Amino acid sequence: MSGRLAVVGMGPGSAGLVTPDAAAALAAADAVYGYGPYLDRVPARAGQARHPTDNREEIGRARAALEAAAGGASVAMVSGGDPGVFAMAAAVCEAVEHGPAAWRGIDLSVQPGVTAMLALAARAGAPLGHDFCAISLSDNLKPWALVERRLAAAAGAGFAVALYNPVSRARPWQLRAAFDVLRGALPGATPVVFGRAVARDGEAVTVAALDGAAAVPADMATCVIVGSAATRVVQRPGLPPLVYTPRSVAESAT
Amino acid sequence: MSGRLAVVGMGPGSAGLVTPDAAAALAAADAVYGYGPYLDRVPARAGQARHPTDNREEIGRARAALEAAAGGASVAMVSGGDPGVFAMAAAVCEAVEHGPAAWRGIDLSVQPGVTAMLALAARAGAPLGHDFCAISLSDNLKPWALVERRLAAAAGAGFAVALYNPVSRARPWQLRAAFDVLRGALPGATPVVFGRAVARDGEAVTVAALDGAAAVPADMATCVIVGSAATRVVQRPGLPPLVYTPRSVAESAT
Repeated sequence: MSGRLAVVGMGPGSAGLVTPDAAAALAAADAVYGYGPYLDRVPARAGQARHPTDNREEIGRARAALEAAAGGASVAMVSGGDPGVFAMAAAVCEAVEHGPAAWRGIDLSVQPGVTAMLALAARAGAPLGHDFCAISLSDNLKPWALVERRLAAAAGAGFAVALYNPVSRARPWQLRAAFDVLRGALPGATPVVFGRAVARDGEAVTVAALDGAAAVPADMATCVIVGSAATRVVQRPGLPPLVYTPRSVAESAT
Repeated sequence: MSGRLAVVGMGPGSAGLVTPDAAAALAAADAVYGYGPYLDRVPARAGQARHPTDNREEIGRARAALEAAAGGASVAMVSGGDPGVFAMAAAVCEAVEHGPAAWRGIDLSVQPGVTAMLALAARAGAPLGHDFCAISLSDNLKPWALVERRLAAAAGAGFAVALYNPVSRARPWQLRAAFDVLRGALPGATPVVFGRAVARDGEAVTVAALDGAAAVPADMATCVIVGSAATRVVQRPGLPPLVYTPRSVAESAT
C-alpha cells in the first residue's frame, strides 16, 4: 500500500506568506521532514512525527520521506520559499528516478510558495519587472566556470538576475567574483538590491550600485537582485527608494 | 493627506494559493482596481468600491489607483500571479516615477504571490530545479529581435526557460518562432511543459518534446516551461510523468 508525499513551500518565513494549500498539506501529514529551521515554522500538531535533518542532507532526507510514504504514511517535506526553486522538489524527483520502482507509485505533490526573489522584489518595487534569470552561486553542485558563463550570458542579454545562495561560510568569495563578472557586462550604476531575512525577524533591504555592491554585507540568509541596464531607482522623500525594471524596451536598445 | 496603495498578487487562480497577507490587504481596502477577471476573484465586501479595467490599460489603471491613494484612500490593485513578474508592480512604479511629486509620498506596498511558472513547475515536478530564466514573448513592449536574442542566450547557457504571454489573438506566431530559436540551441528531445489554467477550472498540463512542441495548443492562459539539456522525464505507471532539472551539473558539462 502506497502513501502520499507533499513537498510544501513555506515561503520566505512569515506565516502571512504561507498559502492555505501549504498549511492544509502540513496539517494533514502524519510525519513531517525537513531542515530544522524550516520545520520549526510548522505549527505543532499532536500525533505528528517530526524528522529534522541537516541542510546538506537533501537526498538522504528525500529518500527517508519517500520510504515513509511508500510504507503507506501521509508525509510532508517542508521547503523554504518555493520547493521548485533551489529547494527540495528537484531532490525528491531525483530520488524517485534513482530509487526503487515502488516509489514511482507514490502520490507525490508539490505545493508552490513565494520564493525569496519574489519576496525581495516586492519589498524593493519591481526589479524583476521584465525578463529575468535566477542563478544559484553555490559551486557545490556545479563548476564555478559555469556560474560565470551564465552570469555573463544573462547580463549580456539584458536580463535582471536574482542570485541565490550568494555566500556561505565555505564559499566566502563567490558573490564578489559574481559582481566582477557582472561589471564586465553592465554599467557601474546598475542597481543591486540585497535582502537579508526578508519577511523574518531582522529583515534588512539595502540598495547599492553595482560598483559598490561588494562592500554590502551578505550571508546565507541573503538574496541579491542585480538589475539590468534599464533598471531604475526612484527616490522618495522619507521612504526607501523604489527599484523597478520597466516593462518596455525601446527598439533602439537592441 | 496621503493614503495607501497595496499591489496584491492573487496567485494563479485558486483561493488556496492566495497568501493570508494578500487576503488581508484586499479586505482592508476601500477601493480595489484591476483587470476584471482578477477582480472577480476578490471576495465581496460591503462598502468596498470596485474599478475593473481592460487588460491592456496597465498604466491608466496604475494612475487611477495612485490618484485615489493620493486623495487619502486605502486602495488595492489586484494582479494575477505575483505582481512583480510581468504584472502590475512595474506599471505602478513607472507611474510613480513619471507622475506628480505627491505620489512619491504614498505608502506603497507589494504583496508577493505564486507566479504562473512556479504553479506550473509544481504540477510537473521540478523543471525549474536549477538555474532558469523567465521571458515574456509579448512583443508589444519590446522588439521581437530582442526576444530571440534572449531565448538564444538563455538556452545556450544552459538555463531552463519559462515563457510568459506565449500567444494571444494578436500574436499568433511568436511561440512557434520561439521554439524554432530554442531548437537551434537544444536537443529535440528537451522536455517542454505546457500549463493551461493551472489552479483554475479546466487545468491542463501537457509534456512534449521540443521537436513536437509547436503542435501543442497554447493560448493566453498558458505558461510554457522549456527545460535545459539536463532536464529529465521520469515515467510513472498510472501517473503523469515527473519532469525535473537536476540540482547538479557535472564538470564535463561545461
